[in-house]
Amino acid sequence: MTSPAATQDSYPYQNEPIWSRSEKVIARTAFDAALGRELHEVIQEAKRMASQIQQSSDLWDLEHYLTQRRKEIDRKYDYRYSQLTHVFGRLLYEKRVREEELRGLREDKLKPIRSFAKFLAEDAA
Amino acid sequence: MTSPAATQDSYPYQNEPIWSRSEKVIARTAFDAALGRELHEVIQEAKRMASQIQQSSDLWDLEHYLTQRRKEIDRKYDYRYSQLTHVFGRLLYEKRVREEELRGLREDKLKPIRSFAKFLAEDAA
Repeated sequence: MTSPAATQDSYPYQNEPIWSRSEKVIARTAFDAALGRELHEVIQEAKRMASQIQQSSDLWDLEHYLTQRRKEIDRKYDYRYSQLTHVFGRLLYEKRVREEELRGLREDKLKPIRSFAKFLAEDAA
Repeated sequence: MTSPAATQDSYPYQNEPIWSRSEKVIARTAFDAALGRELHEVIQEAKRMASQIQQSSDLWDLEHYLTQRRKEIDRKYDYRYSQLTHVFGRLLYEKRVREEELRGLREDKLKPIRSFAKFLAEDAA
């Protein structure tokens, strides 16, 4: 996806924070852990649904569930540095990452992460 | 789907056999039984695949399997009288209906059914 700014501004990324090497390690670790936990949840739910299939509608419900979750996960786990504060903001809001896992990120990352999590919480309320 | 004949010929169905009431009962029974068996197979396979999921690729393999089977079943089980001899021909070729289940259909149905089954067998050989 190209943001409007990227096409209209010759310095599209001037306001984006720079991720240091140690921050990239922290981000990657937290990202992979959250993704792993979410996939584990989907696997458990798929096994549960499959074990309870009795008729064809249950079968296609399982297919639909898997397709929806795959698309949602693809959309959510976007490891581009330009997207990461939104990604972690959402994961924080969904309680899929804990603040401790982000410890070591500088305030220029933590602030927009917390701010987006807060926005999502207020938006849902 | 509209066959070319249906748009080019003002009597598109003139060569199609007429299904009597008793033949319709036989056809519906055989059709539903084959569909039920095939769905049962897919359910068993989905349960087996789900029970063996260990990582996310296994999960998406299950989704892909279900999507493919759903599309294939939708395509194959087309209960329109204009399609039924092809449908049963394929089911006979795939050993999903037995000739005994079609007993009571008249020769104007059985002949094209057997003929299409034979064509598919030769085509696959």
